[in-house]
Amino acid sequence: MKWVTVDRISGYEGEVVQLKGWIANRRSSGKVRFLLVRDGHGTIQCVVGAHDVAPEAFELADKVPYESSIVVTGTVKRDPRSPVGFELAVSDLQLVSEAQPYPISKKDHGVGFLMDHRHLWLRSSRQAALMKIRAAVSKAARDYFDELGFTAVEAPILTPTACEGTTSLFQVGYFEGSAYLTQSGQLYGEAAAMALGTIYVFGPTFRAEKSKTRRHLTEFWMIEPEMAFWEFPETIDLAEGMICRIVRDVLERCAEPLRALERDVSTLEKVTAPFPRITYSEAIDILKERGLPIQWGDDLGGDEETVLSEAFDRPLFVTHYPAAIKAFYMKRDPNDPRLALAVDLLAPEGHGEIIGGGQREDSLEKLEETLALHGLDRGPLEWYLDLRRYGSVPHAGFGLGIERCVAWIAGIHHVRETIAFPRLMDRLYP
Amino acid sequence: MKWVTVDRISGYEGEVVQLKGWIANRRSSGKVRFLLVRDGHGTIQCVVGAHDVAPEAFELADKVPYESSIVVTGTVKRDPRSPVGFELAVSDLQLVSEAQPYPISKKDHGVGFLMDHRHLWLRSSRQAALMKIRAAVSKAARDYFDELGFTAVEAPILTPTACEGTTSLFQVGYFEGSAYLTQSGQLYGEAAAMALGTIYVFGPTFRAEKSKTRRHLTEFWMIEPEMAFWEFPETIDLAEGMICRIVRDVLERCAEPLRALERDVSTLEKVTAPFPRITYSEAIDILKERGLPIQWGDDLGGDEETVLSEAFDRPLFVTHYPAAIKAFYMKRDPNDPRLALAVDLLAPEGHGEIIGGGQREDSLEKLEETLALHGLDRGPLEWYLDLRRYGSVPHAGFGLGIERCVAWIAGIHHVRETIAFPRLMDRLYP
Repeated sequence: MKWVTVDRISGYEGEVVQLKGWIANRRSSGKVRFLLVRDGHGTIQCVVGAHDVAPEAFELADKVPYESSIVVTGTVKRDPRSPVGFELAVSDLQLVSEAQPYPISKKDHGVGFLMDHRHLWLRSSRQAALMKIRAAVSKAARDYFDELGFTAVEAPILTPTACEGTTSLFQVGYFEGSAYLTQSGQLYGEAAAMALGTIYVFGPTFRAEKSKTRRHLTEFWMIEPEMAFWEFPETIDLAEGMICRIVRDVLERCAEPLRALERDVSTLEKVTAPFPRITYSEAIDILKERGLPIQWGDDLGGDEETVLSEAFDRPLFVTHYPAAIKAFYMKRDPNDPRLALAVDLLAPEGHGEIIGGGQREDSLEKLEETLALHGLDRGPLEWYLDLRRYGSVPHAGFGLGIERCVAWIAGIHHVRETIAFPRLMDRLYP
Repeated sequence: MKWVTVDRISGYEGEVVQLKGWIANRRSSGKVRFLLVRDGHGTIQCVVGAHDVAPEAFELADKVPYESSIVVTGTVKRDPRSPVGFELAVSDLQLVSEAQPYPISKKDHGVGFLMDHRHLWLRSSRQAALMKIRAAVSKAARDYFDELGFTAVEAPILTPTACEGTTSLFQVGYFEGSAYLTQSGQLYGEAAAMALGTIYVFGPTFRAEKSKTRRHLTEFWMIEPEMAFWEFPETIDLAEGMICRIVRDVLERCAEPLRALERDVSTLEKVTAPFPRITYSEAIDILKERGLPIQWGDDLGGDEETVLSEAFDRPLFVTHYPAAIKAFYMKRDPNDPRLALAVDLLAPEGHGEIIGGGQREDSLEKLEETLALHGLDRGPLEWYLDLRRYGSVPHAGFGLGIERCVAWIAGIHHVRETIAFPRLMDRLYP
């Protein structure tokens, strides 16, 4: 008997196949039981008629609790009403394991309860859809850079020092000493770019921020390209191309997950190059016009990002931020040294910043000055200064936050549902 | 002027192009300077004749220190003696940044010195080749599972508990409490497999072992597939298919890096299915025959693995280990409950274990027994037990250590050169 997964069922019309999965739902109508069976690759209705199966199999179909695991045998039949286009006319049903009463029911559960049961909540069609979109986002970004000839490089997770200040670092006991969890692979990515030309880092990063907003996790994943001999404008083009590629691939490959999430894809279909590009100063003007109490020189917070991203129907690049509110490694704008060659990308529909990046300072002297200005300890960064001592070149890069990007593309409010096992200030289990 | 990278130079024969890179080496012969220029995508000889460039450019070619960054303009000429098949007849040379005296010279440096300068050492042709092979290994493994319809899932790095004992865990301060760095994504992968059918986890894992062998890092990457409804034999087939795919892709895509490492590829070309499969008991017999002081029931250490893997000319599966020396989650062999349905893959040429895996215990009762037997605290694992309470199914998986796999394929002795920034007991910088 051929074991087939739901995503491939359309190739077996009229054939008798086996499905292996879990009972997600059940409906009864006279002498027929309609089982909704999910197998992780999709969900399909299995029709069990009292006269079509043995009495024990019908009893099973009638009684077995939700989330019990089963093996179903039946004939694949076309059904235009089905989301997958097919249903299974069941001839046999075998129990693998009977579930205890399932804690997650159709009623409304609080998020705390669902998060405590995250290992089970992932089985819901909505959460499974989010995981599939997440995988497609990461793969699209990787494919984009692989095809451009970038080399994937892993930055270390355990680091001797902070990349952007020390207040939001997690400290790790490391044999007799201590280490910190990385906040960004960028500095290491710069070293790798000097060795390999164009690279990207894909990995987890950590921020011990005491913030409980819908955009923050303590553990989140980033993809961070870094390019030797690249300057500011072409780096923005690269980010634009990557976002277009991600959206295109998700639209192509995740039609079913997007449907499960009831995502309005028309807003995603608008995501084509060129994206609007405004300067930080222009952004401040827009925000002032809309009555927000902000001054030139202030950083853009979540509220300001939401207002700006709602003002445009596609992703928005904001460039040329004041150097004072950006990290020490940002290169100054040669036309106006108050400004940094920094760029953020704000996702539309109020989702805010998903990319941050820019051109890096390549002058040893200027970098030393800025380090002193920021009061940062040079010792643990000597290796980073070496990149400016031995054949410094113009270079640039950016980081895309995977969870924020998924939240935008999937159209969900809080990033905590975009990762399998979210880590928050008050959440470390399961 | 067209900026071209060395890997794409063959498409520009006879054309004038620009290269951007660093001076890796220099030779002089009368009125000609031969500069070896690397740009991260490859290395090419650039021929600078005194009569072909401006005097300042020739002066530059003659004097500028190694690792200085430059932009070279010239005509692409076919040259059969060149490893890339071409050289550049230079018409102009511009300095980007003059390097300070480069600390890494052609003379022999100790590994400690080179590791202190890892951010620069990566620029050497050997280290860059290793990074390219590493990227190709990871991509091949991902592609293999993506094409089979597996969903990529990220397991959490910060965990509340230990997967395999507590002695080798790194502890992290987590706000008011503490967390541990993950040793394996497997347990979370099992939960994801119940939601998504077939998944793989790709991410960093951590072991705080006080061992300084050539096979150990404190931070290393694994790819860990996990499959619901899969049993033991097909899981071994899956691992075999993955290894064949990895080797095939590396042979196809990394000819130049393998050449740079002087890797004998004939041993890699032999890596085709089926791989030999022996039981642990047969392995013990082989080791005893060769005079090793080992008894049935002992774990296989590095020495034993080396002897076994040298006894075969392709990767070797060892199966059916004593349950007592394997982790608590291993399923017992129904034919002999002293044994676990566990499998390791030993790489040839003495490289030892690169894969560990097997079928997981799916009975709640048996798992509870084993937890008690191992003296493990059930509390933090209640979520894991839930997977056996709600629709338990046969399932299996394995983990491939990326660094060990790269060390074998690249033919190098120590895993520390297979990752960009290795972390060892005594190494946390740069």
